[in-house]
This record gives sequence, C-alpha cells and structure tokens, in this order.
Amino acid sequence: MNRSKLQFKLEARDGNARAGFFHLHGQKIETPIFMPVGTNATVKAITVDELKTIGYRLILGNTYHLHLRPGDEIIQRLGGLHDFMNWNRGVLTDSGGFQVFSLGKLNKITEEGAFFQSHLDGSKKVLTPESAIAIQENLGSDIMMVLDECLPIPIDKRAAAESIKRTGRWAVRSFNARTTKNNLFGIVQGANFDDLRKESAQMLMETDFDGFAIGGLSVGEEKEIMNRIVSMIAPDLPETKPRYLMGVGDPVDMINSIESGIDMFDCVLPTRNARNGGLFTFKGPMSIKQARYKEDGLPIDEDCGCDVCRNYSRAYLRHLYKSDEILSSRLNSYHNLWFFKQLLEKAREAIFAGTFKEFKRQFLSDYFGSQG
Amino acid sequence: MNRSKLQFKLEARDGNARAGFFHLHGQKIETPIFMPVGTNATVKAITVDELKTIGYRLILGNTYHLHLRPGDEIIQRLGGLHDFMNWNRGVLTDSGGFQVFSLGKLNKITEEGAFFQSHLDGSKKVLTPESAIAIQENLGSDIMMVLDECLPIPIDKRAAAESIKRTGRWAVRSFNARTTKNNLFGIVQGANFDDLRKESAQMLMETDFDGFAIGGLSVGEEKEIMNRIVSMIAPDLPETKPRYLMGVGDPVDMINSIESGIDMFDCVLPTRNARNGGLFTFKGPMSIKQARYKEDGLPIDEDCGCDVCRNYSRAYLRHLYKSDEILSSRLNSYHNLWFFKQLLEKAREAIFAGTFKEFKRQFLSDYFGSQG
Repeated sequence: MNRSKLQFKLEARDGNARAGFFHLHGQKIETPIFMPVGTNATVKAITVDELKTIGYRLILGNTYHLHLRPGDEIIQRLGGLHDFMNWNRGVLTDSGGFQVFSLGKLNKITEEGAFFQSHLDGSKKVLTPESAIAIQENLGSDIMMVLDECLPIPIDKRAAAESIKRTGRWAVRSFNARTTKNNLFGIVQGANFDDLRKESAQMLMETDFDGFAIGGLSVGEEKEIMNRIVSMIAPDLPETKPRYLMGVGDPVDMINSIESGIDMFDCVLPTRNARNGGLFTFKGPMSIKQARYKEDGLPIDEDCGCDVCRNYSRAYLRHLYKSDEILSSRLNSYHNLWFFKQLLEKAREAIFAGTFKEFKRQFLSDYFGSQG
Repeated sequence: MNRSKLQFKLEARDGNARAGFFHLHGQKIETPIFMPVGTNATVKAITVDELKTIGYRLILGNTYHLHLRPGDEIIQRLGGLHDFMNWNRGVLTDSGGFQVFSLGKLNKITEEGAFFQSHLDGSKKVLTPESAIAIQENLGSDIMMVLDECLPIPIDKRAAAESIKRTGRWAVRSFNARTTKNNLFGIVQGANFDDLRKESAQMLMETDFDGFAIGGLSVGEEKEIMNRIVSMIAPDLPETKPRYLMGVGDPVDMINSIESGIDMFDCVLPTRNARNGGLFTFKGPMSIKQARYKEDGLPIDEDCGCDVCRNYSRAYLRHLYKSDEILSSRLNSYHNLWFFKQLLEKAREAIFAGTFKEFKRQFLSDYFGSQG
C-alpha cells in the first residue's frame, strides 16, 4: 500500500467551511468527514463490510487499547491493523495519550513521557513520543498522531502553559521518531486559554505535519468554550492541511465546527448511544426504549434510506432493546453510523452549493423541532 | 401466505435415514434440517439476511418468550412474527410448555393447563392447550406445536404414566382448538420408559397431526437413553409425516438421530456456544479463547467456505472474544450456523447417495480425531 504523504486538495469554501479531499490507502477521502471509532480493532457491533456499505473509507483505531491487547507487535506480525481486522481502507490512530489520562492510572508525566498502569491488569507502562510512534508504525496506521498531554478543563493556567510547551517538544520528538512515510498530525492543546491555544498552534506549525488536530475539547467543558476555541484556532491552521477536531461527534458540535473550518471528526457517540438505545435522526435524537414505541410500526425515520429503516419497526427495535438482544446493538449502530455519514455528506454538499449557513439553520430547526 | 397443510415428500431412504422435503411459507424445506432458534424474535447476534445467506429457510420462535415480551397480541397487530422480525421464510413455534417448566416458576399442573409465574416479572400466568394454540396463531406460526408436559429424567414411572395420558388429551384439545390451517405437530413424551414412549406415540398417531415430534430428550439424561428412545420411536412414527427431535443439536446426536429416521432438529447450541467462544468444525469443536490461537493467522477451518473463515484469523477472533466485543458473538455465531447447515446438507447428500453409514463413520472419525 502506498504510504506517501497525503495531498489535501481544497475543492470549495463557504465562509470558513471547507470541502476537500485527499488520497489514503487507495481511497479518496472526502472532507468534511466523520471517522467511526474502532477501539479494539472493531467498530463496535459492526463489520467492515457494513462500514463499506454505509460508505466509510477512514476509521480510527486506538493505540492505547491495541498496544495493551492483543499487542501492537502481534498485530504487526499478523500483517498490521488493516489485515488483522480485514479493513482495506484508511486507518487513523490516536497516540494513546488520551486513554493514558482517562482510562489508565497515570502515575507521573516527565519530560520523557507518561508513566501509567494498564487498566486491564495494572501492569506498569510508559508511553513516550517515540514509543507512541513505534506502536502506530507497528499497527501500520495511515495517519498517526503525536503524543500529547490532554489537559482537563478547568486547569491552573501556569500548569497548562508548561504542559503545552512539553506537548510542543513531544510533537517534534514524534516527528523525528518516524521510520516510515506514514502521515503524522500535530495536536493543538491549551485547555480553555485563548492565548495558550494560539501559542500551541504556533509551535506546532513550525513543523511540517501532514495535518493539524485540536485536542482537549469535548472533555466536559461548556459548549461555548469549545465553539470559541475552535472558531478561533481552526481558521489559523494551515490552509493546505486537513484540520481534525478530536473526539467530537455531537451532530450540532460537528456542524458548528465545520462552519469554523474543521475537516475531520471522530467520536464513539453513534455506536455507544446505539448500544444504549439512543438513535440519531434529522428530526432529533430519540430513545427507542420509550414505552410510546411499544406498538409503533413506523421505522426510526421514514425519510432514512438505511437498511434498518427500510426493514424494521420502532416496535421491533424497542423489543430487541428491552430483550437485551445483540441485534439491538447491531441495528441501532448501523442506523446511527448511516445518519452520521448522511449528515457529513449533506454538510459537504452545502459547502459546494454555497448554502452552508442555510443548511445549518434548517438542520438545527429540524433537529430541535419535532422530536424530543 | 399459503397456510395449507404441508405435504411431506420422501425422496430417498438409506436404512432408516430419510431425505425429503415439504413446502412452507413459499419455501421448499429440505430434510433432514436444522432450525436455528430465534427465542426473542431474533436468532441471537444474527440478522435475517445472514440466515438467508447461509441458506436457512425455517427457524424456531419461542411461544413462551414472545407471549411474555412483547406479547403475542402486539405481534399479531404488527402483522405476525414474520413481519415483526422481517423474516419471510418458515417459522416453527414451540408450545411454550418446555419454558414453563424450565424458566418460569411452575405453580401447578391441572387438567386445564400449566399455572406458572413469568420469569421476567413474576406475574401469574396460565398456559392451556387452547391458549398455546391461540398464542401461536397470533404469532402466525407455520408449524405449531401442541402443549405438552416435558418430563424430567429420572422420574417416577407412575407419575410419568399419568402425565403422558394428560399430554395425549392436551394434544387432542390443541388439535381441536385451531382456528387456522397452520400446521400442528404432536409431541411424544414418556421420559426414559420404552413402554410409555410407545404408548404416547400410539395415542398421538390417532390424531391427524401434520408431523410428530419427540420431546423430553436432551434434558440431562445419558446419551444412551436418547439414542435408545429415538431409535425405538422414530421408525414407528408415520412414514409420510416429518419427524422432529426437539431441542437436540449436538452434531453427533443429530447424525445418530438422522440414522434412526429423524428429519428435523432445533437447538441453541450453535449460537450459545458461539457467544462463549465455542466453534464447531468438521475436525471437531474448538475453543477460540485458548492461548495457542494468540498469533494464529489461520482461519477457524481452512476447509470452511463461510465469510468468517475466508476473512478472519483465529488470532483476530480470539482477540475479539478476549475483548468482549459484540463482533465476536456475531462472527462466531455466523460460522457455527454455517457449519450446522453444511453438516445437515452433507447428511442429506449421503442419504441420496446411499452412503450414510460411511458418511457417519468418516464424520465421527474426523470430529473426534485431530482437534480437541
């Protein structure tokens, strides 16, 4: 597979919103794009064939999880993550940093890296900028991410200022650690501090990364903070490189962020909510567990063209959920991933048409309108 | 859908083993056949499209479960079980009796019926021969089963003798309770007593059922008991009607029973074992959780043509199982259902070829040979 650097081509602009594409792993990847999350080398409850049927060409794999189980060296010996999970399209991997901070027991952070204990067996581990790259290269990632420190919000500003400098140094070390031509993105941090965010972005842009991400948002902060940071930082990132807002996948947040110039998203929201009976539609979210769907012969959304909406009623889906059937997670996840694909496609079309503001207004009106 | 009575056609015999077919719900159903179990209106972890891809045309639905949740009347108002679960092929339903005895809290059995409490909410219920038929007619079952009392083994012979007489009276009441032309099978009981089994079969054969089942086996008794009862009773059942061994699905048991003249089987074994990492192959069963598969790049069975064996390694399947991923249950269930379909097809072919004894010898040799 060709590992040459991605060439991002801008196709259309509408305000700060952008539509573009790049090629990766033999795939044309059109932006803005949502990437389903395949934490343990599987998008939960979904097969790779189903991802292809829906139209996904780029998914996310989790470095932290795969390093711990089954181990990136085993995956490397079995031909890399693509072969391991039978996915012959694009894979972006995170650096593992976020999970070290959120899932593992973080012992300490030094200039060298992050010392932590596995959430699986408590064993002591260290993740450095160099090892994070080595793991991602073992996985055969098409787009790797630099190791960064994901800061909580709120945080003491002095600590945040020190952290973004270290994150900046780690980014350079990550860049220099590569032994392959796999793409590498830098990550802007800085918590909720405008000046630190700008400083972090400036530091990163001194290195020739293949794309730039904004990290450390959607970590529990107020929505206004996310919108302010994204709308401030995204337009300043290099015009010619993809811009990736990490961990964000709420439909409204994505539309707002696309308006600010973000090109890429990932989130567990569509699959995690699906397993909890939460369904997305253009008429707003719905919870299939509600009693009002008990005898409801309608599909989730009559206007949806997915296999689930064409074949199954709300009453059946509610029954599967109440019966704790695996098919519930399967069908709900499929529908939600279909919705996310449609949403991003519609946003892209609106950018081409120069009608993004109208699209956004209509989307928000529909989404917050009829269903609750 | 045409509800006319099934016409069983015998196509070939090899000793007592039989190959035949009947038409049901627009499908040609070829025997011997294994029917996957769709307890809660879904074969666990599997879609109806996948069942069709594997080649299944007849599945089992559980009257007890569907009566309690979502309720057979709701299913009836939504168009019947076929429409509810989007399955346009054949459905056989049990009578609910077995689950009343195994899952529910049985309060008492009278001539009227079985009084029990729901395993879901403890509510008091009664299942009579008439209500069991009404429920199955609400579900729109293609093949209904009479309400019977499933006896444990061992049991006091006097109690068993009384029970089979009541089961016989219940069978006639079930037969007379029908308001549709849906097919109805009688069920032979009698625990491990040869004379009671023969007496039960004789009683049932006085009624013009569309097929005859042997119940109350595979309930924990010694294998020799099952083989003895089946080989004694099956050949005495009407030549021109299908013979169904209820709840049996162990591959070796099925092959032995086909040899005695059984045509139909159902069991949760392929799907339940799949969820526990148990895989069936012609080289014997295997447990994918074993450490020896950690870096094993081979498929479950190199000679298997299923999508799972063509696309995924044992190492990947082990990883999914160890990671408690839903995809593990999906892929394992698919493979096992594929194996069961192949096994029954091969048995059928051997009957046509007149080589069933040789087929059985080879199957047992392979199955107990190389893998453990």
